[in-house]
Amino acid sequence: MPQDAPTAAMLVIGNEILSGRTQDKNVAHVAKRMSNLGVRLMEVRVVPDVRERIVTAVQELSAAWDYLVTTGGIGPTHDDITTECVADAMGVEVERNAEAHRRLRAHYAGTEIELNEARLRMANIPVGATLIDNPVSAAPGFRLGNVFVLAGVPAIMQAMLAVLEPQLVRGPPLRSHTFVVHRPEGAVAEPLASVATEFADVDIGSYPFYRPPDIGTSLVLRTVDPERLALCADAVRRFLTELGAPFREEA
Amino acid sequence: MPQDAPTAAMLVIGNEILSGRTQDKNVAHVAKRMSNLGVRLMEVRVVPDVRERIVTAVQELSAAWDYLVTTGGIGPTHDDITTECVADAMGVEVERNAEAHRRLRAHYAGTEIELNEARLRMANIPVGATLIDNPVSAAPGFRLGNVFVLAGVPAIMQAMLAVLEPQLVRGPPLRSHTFVVHRPEGAVAEPLASVATEFADVDIGSYPFYRPPDIGTSLVLRTVDPERLALCADAVRRFLTELGAPFREEA
Repeated sequence: MPQDAPTAAMLVIGNEILSGRTQDKNVAHVAKRMSNLGVRLMEVRVVPDVRERIVTAVQELSAAWDYLVTTGGIGPTHDDITTECVADAMGVEVERNAEAHRRLRAHYAGTEIELNEARLRMANIPVGATLIDNPVSAAPGFRLGNVFVLAGVPAIMQAMLAVLEPQLVRGPPLRSHTFVVHRPEGAVAEPLASVATEFADVDIGSYPFYRPPDIGTSLVLRTVDPERLALCADAVRRFLTELGAPFREEA
Repeated sequence: MPQDAPTAAMLVIGNEILSGRTQDKNVAHVAKRMSNLGVRLMEVRVVPDVRERIVTAVQELSAAWDYLVTTGGIGPTHDDITTECVADAMGVEVERNAEAHRRLRAHYAGTEIELNEARLRMANIPVGATLIDNPVSAAPGFRLGNVFVLAGVPAIMQAMLAVLEPQLVRGPPLRSHTFVVHRPEGAVAEPLASVATEFADVDIGSYPFYRPPDIGTSLVLRTVDPERLALCADAVRRFLTELGAPFREEA
């Protein structure tokens, strides 16, 4: 594993994920984008809309990793408490942000929608934070220290993430090579373990798929070093060929 | 919120979720099942296949909540280290379990599949654990104290969960009432906050949906008390009618 790749954690805030009402789609999106940037996603937590739980998670995760991305809880309703919690966690106050206020005014101007007190809450931003543009519905996210606070609605979250990506320090790109093998894991586990020992610097994952009659295993090799990746792939190809296991490769 | 409902956490183990390769489907399933059982899912964590990370997470989550469900990392390959990590976390040894061994022998008997050393690893179970049946592919999960260790493949995880559900202490069933409102969150936030203050014992969630031109908000009321649920729904229905907001209800 590269020593110099930045690390990140993600905090998903919302009762709706924990109750099973909503299937989260943000983790997979953030994970893929971070991989593409060479940033290593190290941990994800999901917590309910409960102040102490959010504050503690923000403190622990922002201290442990280079970046923390939060999703959810920045809308106008009573259960949207992420902004206050992140401010609390980082020891700063929340203020009515003039630029955020201006953006909301501009967004609602000429519509029939009133910029009421509830909507104005979305202009409350921690002191010292910088805004993250929301190209979809105006109400911004923000960055405070190493914490990036994004909306929970996937379309808005994705738009905000695209805006903030240039602010992140990138790591060396992680390259991967996949073998899809039409044999169960148990058939490849022993030679694979030998390869994993020889290539301890390559992250080698074994992922069974089970959709009878289609049963098999994806072997995924990942490293930032193209030469080691090629050597490791050679070693895997060799033992799969010796086993007579049908397989295909995806570089 | 009910004081007497059992609580649970979930630990998802696997690099493939953190790299974005795999969209997790187990969290939503476990969350729904726990809701149905009256068990409150309080936290989810996703960690990579790294020994210290798994051990720490198991210790923290099993200490904090009544139950911990883990998914992933109990297969036959080198990256399947959940069993050893859970044993470590709980301070016990791993042994070759005679019953698990028997089940694997029976499963592979009469097939062309060899019960090799790698597959035999799936019969390694912590001392003192009880097995959780795997009706799909024989290799069992296990329960150790308040920790339930399940497979990561969704079909197998779901089968194991169905088997263990009768072992869980149930809470009072959580009842819910949903209003789907064709107005953005900001239009309902103020009267909703008043209702939330009046019904502090009811969990009231506001979930925007944004699929232009279909923009609106789902209001979800949840409590174990049917009378309070009905009163709270009356209060929401009243203000939505006063607002003239088009809505439908799902009890």
